[in-house]
Amino acid sequence: MIVLFTDFGLEGPYVGQMKAVLHRQAPGVPVVDLIADAPPFDPMAPAYLLAAYAPAFEASTVFLCVVDPGVGGDRAALAVEADGRWFVGPDNGLFQIVARRAETARWHEITWRPQSLSASFHGRDLFAPVAAQLARGEAPETKNSPASPIGTDWPDDLPRIVYVDRFGNAMTGLRAASLAPDAVLEAGGERLTRRRTFSDAAAGEAFWYENANGLVEIAVNRGRADVTLGLSPGTPVAVLG
Amino acid sequence: MIVLFTDFGLEGPYVGQMKAVLHRQAPGVPVVDLIADAPPFDPMAPAYLLAAYAPAFEASTVFLCVVDPGVGGDRAALAVEADGRWFVGPDNGLFQIVARRAETARWHEITWRPQSLSASFHGRDLFAPVAAQLARGEAPETKNSPASPIGTDWPDDLPRIVYVDRFGNAMTGLRAASLAPDAVLEAGGERLTRRRTFSDAAAGEAFWYENANGLVEIAVNRGRADVTLGLSPGTPVAVLG
Amino acid sequence: MIVLFTDFGLEGPYVGQMKAVLHRQAPGVPVVDLIADAPPFDPMAPAYLLAAYAPAFEASTVFLCVVDPGVGGDRAALAVEADGRWFVGPDNGLFQIVARRAETARWHEITWRPQSLSASFHGRDLFAPVAAQLARGEAPETKNSPASPIGTDWPDDLPRIVYVDRFGNAMTGLRAASLAPDAVLEAGGERLTRRRTFSDAAAGEAFWYENANGLVEIAVNRGRADVTLGLSPGTPVAVLG
Repeated sequence: MIVLFTDFGLEGPYVGQMKAVLHRQAPGVPVVDLIADAPPFDPMAPAYLLAAYAPAFEASTVFLCVVDPGVGGDRAALAVEADGRWFVGPDNGLFQIVARRAETARWHEITWRPQSLSASFHGRDLFAPVAAQLARGEAPETKNSPASPIGTDWPDDLPRIVYVDRFGNAMTGLRAASLAPDAVLEAGGERLTRRRTFSDAAAGEAFWYENANGLVEIAVNRGRADVTLGLSPGTPVAVLG
Repeated sequence: MIVLFTDFGLEGPYVGQMKAVLHRQAPGVPVVDLIADAPPFDPMAPAYLLAAYAPAFEASTVFLCVVDPGVGGDRAALAVEADGRWFVGPDNGLFQIVARRAETARWHEITWRPQSLSASFHGRDLFAPVAAQLARGEAPETKNSPASPIGTDWPDDLPRIVYVDRFGNAMTGLRAASLAPDAVLEAGGERLTRRRTFSDAAAGEAFWYENANGLVEIAVNRGRADVTLGLSPGTPVAVLG
Repeated sequence: MIVLFTDFGLEGPYVGQMKAVLHRQAPGVPVVDLIADAPPFDPMAPAYLLAAYAPAFEASTVFLCVVDPGVGGDRAALAVEADGRWFVGPDNGLFQIVARRAETARWHEITWRPQSLSASFHGRDLFAPVAAQLARGEAPETKNSPASPIGTDWPDDLPRIVYVDRFGNAMTGLRAASLAPDAVLEAGGERLTRRRTFSDAAAGEAFWYENANGLVEIAVNRGRADVTLGLSPGTPVAVLG
């Protein structure tokens, strides 16, 4: 299975062009859109998001990840193997957290280049063909490389909003398991206690809970946490203990 | 074929996680996104929408339907067989209208539970595996149950807006066949007569017509009915005769 | 492969209904969403967009194209074969530019009609079945016809914005190869010089570049060109030489 993780949106032309490459070069392999609305321009928040979602996928899954503000510059292209899963995309920190949490992680710099490489769409021209090759079980041209230094100074858990979903729920880069079960958070100027899930909160109440992927998520039952508390990717979250 | 009907949106992480389960547990079965932007929080409008769209699909189609504001609470999980099609999702009225209009409807409460069931994402953990099982032709663990009482008091046709599409056209919960052919409607303070389709109305004219799924839909030729008339899901529509 | 090019959006019910037809009538053929947010109501801008994207797909690809404000009126239905690729959709100019740029183009008017043809959704009822037939390698009922006269007066390259992507980058209908390499453009009251790609521009700088499909695209590095310069589909662009 090839899993797509991008900031491209689905309705525009970018994901479709990548899928056309994947269907042609890895026919029959299912392609799943995991996230197409990752926060753009900055790979830090997406790095924590990716690390929260990846472990549920079986080994041999290939993640094609494109949050790539530096495309066309001199950043390297990576294929990282972490606990048997492959992560293909730009060397900008996007794979730092998933690799750090893996038992085994091997970093490879992609040295293969297509005959024609556009300056602005490596997702289609470079990363998709490499993902297709990995999905076919073949080894693309790479060289072993040291772990990327980008993001090595990022914390294990990120006390910030990393994603807001369409209901207005705000995911943080904190794993719930890293907090005390009765931890109190502060975000958007409001103190938040923990609930098990939405139906355990009163209508309109803001709270935090462990979401279905293990992240601390801030929500308002039958309301929008992003609007009520003024949250967006990057907003800091304080753990009061 | 498995058909997805949700309020999840497509770009965020929810539909992709369900599809990953479906591809793994029902490999080779086509999965089609029918509606990903059903009105959220209230299953009533989606119930009429689902009932309008389902009959065009062939028998044995499995509808995986998640509009589930009560997730994590004590609402039951259902698999309803209506005229040979399967509907899997929460017991909150979502299947009431499709079952009522079917010649035969059998209600089953899903008793199967996965090893790990999150409190907030039964679409992935519970409903998707059951839908995959049905798509494989297997019987999930269920018990026969009486028809759900939720929604039994809802009308056969709902005189409200149930959906606004991206062009601003506003679908109602009324089947066109339930009205006199020359019925006049009132919505958003304006009287609306019937046209066959867009090109029969003057540019800027508001009208109603029978849409391609049999519903009464309010539109403005080359304009947005939602903006012009102030319509959104829940807005009442009066049938003047 | 069947490629979808529409103004339907993906989250609503239209694309899903077309895909259900395609999966049933052309089982096993990959279906790729290329563009679902083409500018609506006017086929002129989408015609230049389609012509820029089509050549990268291999021969025998079937493009199912629905930007169809005249649906239900008396416009004809077309299947155009251009350089071995098929284009199925309404006769409203949408295929004019792709045909003009092809070495060989054959125009066919679709004479086949389904048993039941809705007045408002020919994408599902007429064009999708014809696309499925072509994808199966069969010949639908058509008659040879002269090239459509609609759009024959449109220019070879269109000096207007034809599409704005989710990052705010604004594509024009101009092929970069049609301009001098050091051409200066004017759009939204600002003069724009050429850069190779984003990382060659200063943060916040507006520029133009040749995008990954050969079009002149106006962008702001780490910003939104649509907002900064006030660009939307239809905005004129001047080539200063």
